[in-house]
Amino acid sequence: MAGDRRCIGVFDSGIGGLTVVRELRRRLPHEEIVYFGDTARVPYGIKSAETVTRFARENCDFLLRFDPKMIVVACNTASAAALPALEGTLPIPMCGVVEPGAREAVLLGRGQTIAVIATEATIASDAYRRAMKQYDPHVRVIQRPCPLFVPLAEEGRPSSDPIVKAVVEDYLEPIVRLDPKVLVLGCTHYPLLKEAIAEVTGPEVKLVDSGEQTARAVAEQLTAGGALSDRTGRARLRCYVSDNPQRFRELGQRFLDHAVVDVTWISPEQFFASDVTTVAQHA
Amino acid sequence: MAGDRRCIGVFDSGIGGLTVVRELRRRLPHEEIVYFGDTARVPYGIKSAETVTRFARENCDFLLRFDPKMIVVACNTASAAALPALEGTLPIPMCGVVEPGAREAVLLGRGQTIAVIATEATIASDAYRRAMKQYDPHVRVIQRPCPLFVPLAEEGRPSSDPIVKAVVEDYLEPIVRLDPKVLVLGCTHYPLLKEAIAEVTGPEVKLVDSGEQTARAVAEQLTAGGALSDRTGRARLRCYVSDNPQRFRELGQRFLDHAVVDVTWISPEQFFASDVTTVAQHA
Repeated sequence: MAGDRRCIGVFDSGIGGLTVVRELRRRLPHEEIVYFGDTARVPYGIKSAETVTRFARENCDFLLRFDPKMIVVACNTASAAALPALEGTLPIPMCGVVEPGAREAVLLGRGQTIAVIATEATIASDAYRRAMKQYDPHVRVIQRPCPLFVPLAEEGRPSSDPIVKAVVEDYLEPIVRLDPKVLVLGCTHYPLLKEAIAEVTGPEVKLVDSGEQTARAVAEQLTAGGALSDRTGRARLRCYVSDNPQRFRELGQRFLDHAVVDVTWISPEQFFASDVTTVAQHA
Repeated sequence: MAGDRRCIGVFDSGIGGLTVVRELRRRLPHEEIVYFGDTARVPYGIKSAETVTRFARENCDFLLRFDPKMIVVACNTASAAALPALEGTLPIPMCGVVEPGAREAVLLGRGQTIAVIATEATIASDAYRRAMKQYDPHVRVIQRPCPLFVPLAEEGRPSSDPIVKAVVEDYLEPIVRLDPKVLVLGCTHYPLLKEAIAEVTGPEVKLVDSGEQTARAVAEQLTAGGALSDRTGRARLRCYVSDNPQRFRELGQRFLDHAVVDVTWISPEQFFASDVTTVAQHA
């Protein structure tokens, strides 16, 4: 069967989704990726489900202009709030980050308590608990929003920073006291603080990085559909942002683990254009 | 001369501007206020000057539908990035928060070093330094972005919280070592952390709250123009937000110092409507 060389479309509220892209590129190096970071409207994690759903739909419309074979919602808040409403309305398959992370957590949890840390909006949506209940109707889930983790990660503070350590302890100690077996990092920024988190939770608590699990789920989905690319060599990563390409480039390296080279700013006129050719200039 | 009972329009990226409204209502209790918080696109402090200017222009267009006598930009980032471009394009006077804060700082500084803390975007704009130079061409200014202060204030942590204390020390100790005489709180969220800030800077450093200075400047401007309201009794405060009125209500109380009662969500269709009557339904 001939390979499918169309790109994978990926979007996030901003820069965090690059941790998912990092995992996608590790597992699927031959897949071309078009990433959209909605940096003009970031963050989504403090916004309503209605607003996040509207933003997510617009981001999908934008990505569809690149003729992707699949769209990955590399944002926990958008996966939690918008994916159920969006799936089925698009002509191609979608994959969010909540479902793969929830599945892995239930597998690792083996009936013991699972903790989830995420943004306010993701926790409020209860999406992780709902996803886990599909696999284990009796699953016990503790959830906690950690609103300082995103700005801490974006400020570039390492896990060894005393402020990072203090904030991680402050959020996680009440969780650790409830003795969970698994902790889901339910926001794509959190892998940057993984070391500090592991130090507080200790070696008995397994950390689930939804980025890793999502990359695995995408690989399974493409393989099952016979839609893997038959390219050889490393495929291209193109990034589009709705604001501040310079900041995206500067911060992006830490999230992607290598330099973010190809970043293009998309103006509101281009983003909302119904005329598809507007983006062809950039593609 | 008859009083001018038209409202004062106020906007901010979100909720922080309520600290400016609090000062406006203390000083000008008879002035009706219409506030717009752009909670769907908050924060502005990590975004580009172009994007912030576009958002600010749209916010002004929205407020103009209420026939205000003046527009107050109760957001340091928008005042720094957008006010010079907006002033003169509107049919009514405007007042930002940077200019009044800068003037007071120079008056209090008496030639000694002045420190400014604010968002990334406000610091990058250099607007405070430029404003201060108008009053003292030789002014010495130290500037530092404090990106964790906004989420700390929104999380509702009090000044006594150990995390707040640690973060305030982390940002301000390098500034205090340079021995400034004045510290400008160049973000409308920062007054919520004033006690913790004052503890680190000590009694010799005077803190300038741009909200207080802005209220004074607005009062002066209205008095000079004969445009004060001749109402008696406390005038109405109406708030409009582009997302999440419930969160605005919940968090607003701490910023305003009393309950935020009258909050209406404005949909994108209403916000971007060119038809003025769309808002009349809410007014």
